[in-house]
Amino acid sequence: MHNCIRKIAIAGSGNVAWHLATALKKKDFDITGIWSRSYEHASLLAGKCSATVRNTLSELTTDTDLILIAVPDGAIEEVVQKIGKFDGIVVHTAGSVGLEILNSHFARTGVFYPLQTFSKERDIDLQEVPFFLESSAEEVMEQLKEVAVQLSSRVFEADTAQRLLLHVAAVFAGNYSNLMYIIGNEILATTTLPSDVIHPLMLETTRKAIADEPLKVQTGPARRNDINTIKKHLEALAPLPEYAELYQLLAQAIRKKYK
Amino acid sequence: MHNCIRKIAIAGSGNVAWHLATALKKKDFDITGIWSRSYEHASLLAGKCSATVRNTLSELTTDTDLILIAVPDGAIEEVVQKIGKFDGIVVHTAGSVGLEILNSHFARTGVFYPLQTFSKERDIDLQEVPFFLESSAEEVMEQLKEVAVQLSSRVFEADTAQRLLLHVAAVFAGNYSNLMYIIGNEILATTTLPSDVIHPLMLETTRKAIADEPLKVQTGPARRNDINTIKKHLEALAPLPEYAELYQLLAQAIRKKYK
Repeated sequence: MHNCIRKIAIAGSGNVAWHLATALKKKDFDITGIWSRSYEHASLLAGKCSATVRNTLSELTTDTDLILIAVPDGAIEEVVQKIGKFDGIVVHTAGSVGLEILNSHFARTGVFYPLQTFSKERDIDLQEVPFFLESSAEEVMEQLKEVAVQLSSRVFEADTAQRLLLHVAAVFAGNYSNLMYIIGNEILATTTLPSDVIHPLMLETTRKAIADEPLKVQTGPARRNDINTIKKHLEALAPLPEYAELYQLLAQAIRKKYK
Repeated sequence: MHNCIRKIAIAGSGNVAWHLATALKKKDFDITGIWSRSYEHASLLAGKCSATVRNTLSELTTDTDLILIAVPDGAIEEVVQKIGKFDGIVVHTAGSVGLEILNSHFARTGVFYPLQTFSKERDIDLQEVPFFLESSAEEVMEQLKEVAVQLSSRVFEADTAQRLLLHVAAVFAGNYSNLMYIIGNEILATTTLPSDVIHPLMLETTRKAIADEPLKVQTGPARRNDINTIKKHLEALAPLPEYAELYQLLAQAIRKKYK
């Protein structure tokens, strides 16, 4: 029988670090230390979960079972090097970074990737958030699972390639749908109407796509192949030529789907 | 003092007709008649709101204050012609069709446009749905407002040009965000993971954009100008070249916003 992870140190104090650290603390994990490039942010988060602020990354190894790295993707390699020698488990939380970035430095490694958009100001029910775990060691995978199932009811195994695709899917369904909201907002701002008139549509569109398949619930001029309305819309977009171009491209993408 | 609209006839039995007719009936308007290209659909809706099925459009004029046209944009002109002579008010419900399509045939006309995506199977709280009204006659506008405020707490005046822009904004924030969900789903389908793992992200992205401004809450590799992750994503999309192209285009659109 393997040991349970009870003591967790965290590198990072951004949105992911913030949500994971506070949720783990609530589930009675011992947050042993917090390191962040910003001492101030580390202090704030440490205060939130009764942890010690660590001045250096190597201090994170002090009396802990697991080091969880939740820093920007491009900073992981440097963090890994500065942690130095550590016999416990080290995981990162990145969608598009392979497990191998940890394997050259540590014996017991894994990935602990929550698929959600986190902001410090917004409460998230982690129970609903899917977690994707990876490890090359079965024992480590079991240990990570024991942690993850306390945070979430949806825990999966996914290797680096699957996680990368997952992240790409998330960019479309998350980042790029938000871009569509930005553009919608901008067009609305050219009228005298308040920007929130579009909110019920945004919410219902999303709920509908969740309740059914998005491919089945698509509506609109492109879906109906309503050339006349598309033409009117492109004329209305004449003062915003880059959006006219994008409108046409996305209309084509929809029409292709229903040919 | 003008007369109140109490009796309403409806041309159409699609999603908009369905939701408006049943909501108006609930608010004790008298639905006098329903006409639809499909007699079967007209019967179903008429049954729902104790209305008479009309075999011809000209019969819709029988004993009614208002005829509400809720048919596909391209069918409005023909419906208008076939209604024939009518002294009451005639409105259409289309985002991208001008008021003038009615003005050549009737003396008292208007537009009654609800901004939402409707499906018969899904209940919608119309109280939250913004309605946009247009009329060239002040008296008609007042009469339409009296109807609209019974259905919704958000009633606005908007002319044809504003309504067109509103509809274009809705295409981006609704139809095109749904396209992003379709693509996200498709990418996810190339993995072994269930498609619903992306649902919490979709919902939280939308809620966040509603709670704040979408421009302020944008996240992701393009927002961070994280070239390395974008490169990995484009590689992962190699088997789906049209999405790789779209990914890059939308990433550029985001990066432009934050220059």
